[in-house]
Amino acid sequence: MPNTPRVKRLIRQAIAEDLGQGDMTTEGLIPETQQSKALVTAKARGIIAGTEIAKQVFLEVDPKLEVDILIKDGTEVKPGDVIARIEGKTASILKAERVALNFLQRLSGIASETARYVQAVKGLPVLITDTRKTTPGLRTLEKYAVRVGGGKNHRMNLADGILIKDNHIAVLRHRGLSIKEIVAKARHKASPELKIEIEVKTPEEASQAAEAGADIVMLDNMNLKDMRQAVRLVKGRALIEASGGITLESVRDVAKTGVDLISIGALTHSPKALDISLELELF
Amino acid sequence: MPNTPRVKRLIRQAIAEDLGQGDMTTEGLIPETQQSKALVTAKARGIIAGTEIAKQVFLEVDPKLEVDILIKDGTEVKPGDVIARIEGKTASILKAERVALNFLQRLSGIASETARYVQAVKGLPVLITDTRKTTPGLRTLEKYAVRVGGGKNHRMNLADGILIKDNHIAVLRHRGLSIKEIVAKARHKASPELKIEIEVKTPEEASQAAEAGADIVMLDNMNLKDMRQAVRLVKGRALIEASGGITLESVRDVAKTGVDLISIGALTHSPKALDISLELELF
Amino acid sequence: MPNTPRVKRLIRQAIAEDLGQGDMTTEGLIPETQQSKALVTAKARGIIAGTEIAKQVFLEVDPKLEVDILIKDGTEVKPGDVIARIEGKTASILKAERVALNFLQRLSGIASETARYVQAVKGLPVLITDTRKTTPGLRTLEKYAVRVGGGKNHRMNLADGILIKDNHIAVLRHRGLSIKEIVAKARHKASPELKIEIEVKTPEEASQAAEAGADIVMLDNMNLKDMRQAVRLVKGRALIEASGGITLESVRDVAKTGVDLISIGALTHSPKALDISLELELF
Amino acid sequence: MPNTPRVKRLIRQAIAEDLGQGDMTTEGLIPETQQSKALVTAKARGIIAGTEIAKQVFLEVDPKLEVDILIKDGTEVKPGDVIARIEGKTASILKAERVALNFLQRLSGIASETARYVQAVKGLPVLITDTRKTTPGLRTLEKYAVRVGGGKNHRMNLADGILIKDNHIAVLRHRGLSIKEIVAKARHKASPELKIEIEVKTPEEASQAAEAGADIVMLDNMNLKDMRQAVRLVKGRALIEASGGITLESVRDVAKTGVDLISIGALTHSPKALDISLELELF
Amino acid sequence: MPNTPRVKRLIRQAIAEDLGQGDMTTEGLIPETQQSKALVTAKARGIIAGTEIAKQVFLEVDPKLEVDILIKDGTEVKPGDVIARIEGKTASILKAERVALNFLQRLSGIASETARYVQAVKGLPVLITDTRKTTPGLRTLEKYAVRVGGGKNHRMNLADGILIKDNHIAVLRHRGLSIKEIVAKARHKASPELKIEIEVKTPEEASQAAEAGADIVMLDNMNLKDMRQAVRLVKGRALIEASGGITLESVRDVAKTGVDLISIGALTHSPKALDISLELELF
Amino acid sequence: MPNTPRVKRLIRQAIAEDLGQGDMTTEGLIPETQQSKALVTAKARGIIAGTEIAKQVFLEVDPKLEVDILIKDGTEVKPGDVIARIEGKTASILKAERVALNFLQRLSGIASETARYVQAVKGLPVLITDTRKTTPGLRTLEKYAVRVGGGKNHRMNLADGILIKDNHIAVLRHRGLSIKEIVAKARHKASPELKIEIEVKTPEEASQAAEAGADIVMLDNMNLKDMRQAVRLVKGRALIEASGGITLESVRDVAKTGVDLISIGALTHSPKALDISLELELF
Repeated sequence: MPNTPRVKRLIRQAIAEDLGQGDMTTEGLIPETQQSKALVTAKARGIIAGTEIAKQVFLEVDPKLEVDILIKDGTEVKPGDVIARIEGKTASILKAERVALNFLQRLSGIASETARYVQAVKGLPVLITDTRKTTPGLRTLEKYAVRVGGGKNHRMNLADGILIKDNHIAVLRHRGLSIKEIVAKARHKASPELKIEIEVKTPEEASQAAEAGADIVMLDNMNLKDMRQAVRLVKGRALIEASGGITLESVRDVAKTGVDLISIGALTHSPKALDISLELELF
Repeated sequence: MPNTPRVKRLIRQAIAEDLGQGDMTTEGLIPETQQSKALVTAKARGIIAGTEIAKQVFLEVDPKLEVDILIKDGTEVKPGDVIARIEGKTASILKAERVALNFLQRLSGIASETARYVQAVKGLPVLITDTRKTTPGLRTLEKYAVRVGGGKNHRMNLADGILIKDNHIAVLRHRGLSIKEIVAKARHKASPELKIEIEVKTPEEASQAAEAGADIVMLDNMNLKDMRQAVRLVKGRALIEASGGITLESVRDVAKTGVDLISIGALTHSPKALDISLELELF
Repeated sequence: MPNTPRVKRLIRQAIAEDLGQGDMTTEGLIPETQQSKALVTAKARGIIAGTEIAKQVFLEVDPKLEVDILIKDGTEVKPGDVIARIEGKTASILKAERVALNFLQRLSGIASETARYVQAVKGLPVLITDTRKTTPGLRTLEKYAVRVGGGKNHRMNLADGILIKDNHIAVLRHRGLSIKEIVAKARHKASPELKIEIEVKTPEEASQAAEAGADIVMLDNMNLKDMRQAVRLVKGRALIEASGGITLESVRDVAKTGVDLISIGALTHSPKALDISLELELF
Repeated sequence: MPNTPRVKRLIRQAIAEDLGQGDMTTEGLIPETQQSKALVTAKARGIIAGTEIAKQVFLEVDPKLEVDILIKDGTEVKPGDVIARIEGKTASILKAERVALNFLQRLSGIASETARYVQAVKGLPVLITDTRKTTPGLRTLEKYAVRVGGGKNHRMNLADGILIKDNHIAVLRHRGLSIKEIVAKARHKASPELKIEIEVKTPEEASQAAEAGADIVMLDNMNLKDMRQAVRLVKGRALIEASGGITLESVRDVAKTGVDLISIGALTHSPKALDISLELELF
Repeated sequence: MPNTPRVKRLIRQAIAEDLGQGDMTTEGLIPETQQSKALVTAKARGIIAGTEIAKQVFLEVDPKLEVDILIKDGTEVKPGDVIARIEGKTASILKAERVALNFLQRLSGIASETARYVQAVKGLPVLITDTRKTTPGLRTLEKYAVRVGGGKNHRMNLADGILIKDNHIAVLRHRGLSIKEIVAKARHKASPELKIEIEVKTPEEASQAAEAGADIVMLDNMNLKDMRQAVRLVKGRALIEASGGITLESVRDVAKTGVDLISIGALTHSPKALDISLELELF
Repeated sequence: MPNTPRVKRLIRQAIAEDLGQGDMTTEGLIPETQQSKALVTAKARGIIAGTEIAKQVFLEVDPKLEVDILIKDGTEVKPGDVIARIEGKTASILKAERVALNFLQRLSGIASETARYVQAVKGLPVLITDTRKTTPGLRTLEKYAVRVGGGKNHRMNLADGILIKDNHIAVLRHRGLSIKEIVAKARHKASPELKIEIEVKTPEEASQAAEAGADIVMLDNMNLKDMRQAVRLVKGRALIEASGGITLESVRDVAKTGVDLISIGALTHSPKALDISLELELF
């Protein structure tokens, strides 16, 4: 669970955003002394992710709430499964409800979508990875949800991997460098701690990149035939990643080409939120 | 365009999140003196929203970039339409690219989805509204994108409207209050500046709520028949809002019941990002 | 009690502002092991507001302090009444003292001033409200103090109500719009969740505004005779608010005109702090 | 002008607080292309302070506004005097108006109140100073306004001066230390860069404090006779400060006792805001 | 221990900086249920400072860790001395380790270096002080470490002392002011709470400064002979500070000239970190 | 130049830290209209790093200053070399001076120290790298300074590389895993984008680690003989890093063993600041 200071700050900002100057409905109607239990319940099938974040939202609003997570991140749920039970001041539960659910629904949506891709390539020696196409401000959490769903993370940010993309290559080719020279230049400049990945358009470029010592070769929007050819040329010398427009329908065919990694932007840029609700139990 | 200090802070945080300790690929490979033009281009059909945010991302990374917005928010685009042109230091453009696109693709996705709902009810006297089911930290922007797509905003946060929901009502009923007494209590407690909305389950409750002086009555997950009945009972005394599980398929039928407002959580919790790319032009 | 993340941030900033690099007097003179009790005591008559904020200041400085609030917000005190009792490390109490009192004295001053206005209109069907003339950074707390003193809140910020002021009207009139057209335009553009208020100068404008569907009509700096005329024309169609230069001396006469709301900027821009002190008890 | 990063942060927070999710009235009604001039005008007599802060508020909302300060901080104004002229996008001016005025009115109120005290002791060799009884978050600005009004600043925070107050003394006496030993201990512990001030209740204590080497002796709530006696005993060995319950009525008599400094909490905890308004000029 | 909100913020930022998106090694390898003890041990001789900060780092990462400080700040340690014992979740200890040690090693390095200077002047009536040459962001902590090492603090920041330096004097001389006039002007303008210090180049200037009423005279880069002469001329009228290029080798000779204060930039700008390590004990 | 939002925030915080409530000396003595030139000059030999940061400090204090960098980062300077020239308001230059120099002196100190190590291994196929032993809050800048000095960066933070250290290994061995199993587990869990490094104590462990597929093997505190043996066993299968207690005296001998990387904590935890000063030129 990525419980970093920046995640804590995001939680505080999200509560601030939703509370504004205070929950005027609850303050006006719910007695300060009223206590409740509440159940957080799945209303659709999927993989749960973000329970600890939801818990922190409740505790940030009121540290005296008791929050019991009943279903751990990574578990598959069906409608009616109780994910968490909260007990304490009713007003606090209601103030925290929407923000907690907004996190939980989004992250569970990502984990569920990832799991669908992972399931689609089951049995094949390939990893499903995310991209940097995440929601601004939520990358740490969204990449965590991908891991919960069985995926792997691609680069976290621009500092922790060298990825030479089409735009970089265009500039460098314009200055007369070959793929080989580009990779060599990157190797010379980069931290020895970082892997070097390069985006290529053809099997030939893939081969040149591997020969030049790239750690990962990204096949950008190639068709299946070219992918197979690239795998033949590169396999064993570098990791091979397929990228670009791959869907739940096409992912297994891509996997069968023999690539090592398949990166899917849609895991984080277009997931469907998982339906989850909170209901009070009075006592 | 919601150019608030908190939006500016979000932009800075999103850049920080993506840059980490710096763009190691670009710093290693692209000469500091290299200048480029770049085009931001639509790769799918949809409504554009967030161009000013994207522009601010580029300018936050490098205030010397020239950013020309060619297509204003709210415009419908088709694949190949150029949305913006950027000119300046290549390294700056590449550092800002992903964050700018992440904002632009998400907000355009929301505007596009909203526009589909608005289109679906065309000609009927009803408004499509959002909910508080927004991405944590992005509410101001996401609600702006809904407006760009032709929708209206529901409450911005818990302070700027009284919305008495099922959980509130459960507590108050448990303490012996009727719908009428609940609305009266809310009216007495609330700021006179705020509208009072209440969620009801039956046409009868809707009628009681209107009689008690609620400004808006929310029909929660009612079937079409009950909605029509509620409209008959309430129309003219309060605004009527339909809410809960309404889809692009069902929205026109709901609208035909005569409700004034239809709120759709999916506008912001599950939009599909609009595909948009950035390509350098060298010179 | 508006215990939002932004209020917590304000508390931290206020402590940082007062502590600087540390309390050099206390660190130099008071042994780390010294324990004390302290009493927070009223030294003047008034209404207490902000006890929970004061408590949070003490706990932010030292979470091990025991802070007992003896008098709840909204209570009237006289000199000598003990508001709170604190027990724990002497150095912590002394570090927190000034910031805690600065909050408590200011908020109690606002509550006390509000209560004087509310008392002045006792028995009349009118509400006393605040304005946006609050101290930068303290709005949430100052508006809370107004509620504690028996007042109601006007708009919290520019997003949660439509208030068409003289400057807006001047622009729109200059472009040829009538009061009626202005209100209609606002209604068309605004969220259906928001009330529409408009500032008017004459009873006739008030009547036009009500006819056009304004929810609230603000009578700006009108004399009593005009106010009575406006009330006659508008009553029942919209809420009527009196605003501008109303004092403790004039407020009852204004209330007798039949307006529904009286807004008073001085509640928050010029309150007199309530005198409150902290004294140690040694043991 | 205290243009520190923390002041800039306060300005951003104040704008955020007032804007919320955006100025819905202005966005709905005022065309983006509309340009205006606006005049900021005094509506009461007083000393202006905070013009640069007001200017920064306008520029933070829209860097393209032209803001001309016509009356410098420290100038006395009368009703009708134009303090500043702003030109640019109408919507920007209206969004910034309230926050800019809230700063300007409060700071001018403090400067005006300070000037009244300074005027009251005119011709006597005494300085009027503020205290730490400032509004949480605004200390830098409020202490600046005191200087604008002709006053001097007491300690900025707990780190930049040693002030041994009644509560410190109570603890140390309880442990058997004399005034002399307390001052000696403070001198030994404190940074040599800091002055040492001690609060005393009687002329005798004042004398002991001076003898012990205190730099400043604060006469706490003494009557005039005791003050005169304390001045006789201490003058020339330490600065003498009168403090506690001194009003505009009593300040000159206090000054005549011969004290060097008179500190007034009310300068910052209870000033009356100076009435200032903004009106658009259309073109 | 300077436990201010800004120090707490620095701790959070330092953890954020080191954690990035999470400790991928520990998350991948160490079971969530694994518990450990850990010992923080000195590996070199020196003075310990910053134990409370290190403790806060561990608690910020995981509030459930038990952290026992065994050696208080200011204690001299030798290799093998156990400074603290931590018990709890292994993963939490490992996540916090580096940041905690980075603080502890740097602050102990400063305290150790200070103690060497203090030791070097032992028996002489002189104080060793720091300067404003501190690491950006760490001043509060670094100045605390100087105090721990037996030194005194010079000015904390530009607001809490008047220090007229060579560049100020150059400007003012250029405008025709003498040292005496400069000091007089400073006295007139400054808060009466602040001491006035002036930097001088010659014994004659030192004497003029003292005569003009400076509280502290700083002898800038003078040779020993000039220092002795300056002490003769100034002693008893103002504190005398030696500054500029003083080393561990020369400091005792400087002290013997009779100056009251010796300020050493190197205490904070070039300390050698004290070697300290953390080792797990498994159970 | 790592011009990230977090670096900008650090600059603002450092200015805030040094300014406090304002530069009282400069505000009291230097006329607002006074203009100056200033030269930033080296006073010792070394490699300059941080000129852009220093420039940003000046511009953050006053955007109207003209700051010309005359010597680029990475240049070797000798006493008297002019690094930058600033022109504008004297008061602004003096307010920014200390913070700008504090950054510049520290970063240049790190670059200079790094360059000494790089020089010491000149001609040998080895890279000098830093560690995570950086000053809290300054890592981005300090790692940049290492690059300026000719070094390479080790991991930026805990998320961007897998480094299995002695404490991890102890836990996993305690649970019965071999080096081989540990590396395999790490490979299975980690992102495919990340390199896997493992710390070993003996040549045999080094060999096992390489065989298990580690990308980098860190030889922890080995003697030269063991290093040579480890190199023989591992070379060509993984990068080899020497770490622990390596000094300027020993570094060349270590390099001659054939290791690929030598990491040096002292580059960032104990650098000596480079002496640099700012002098005004009046006109």
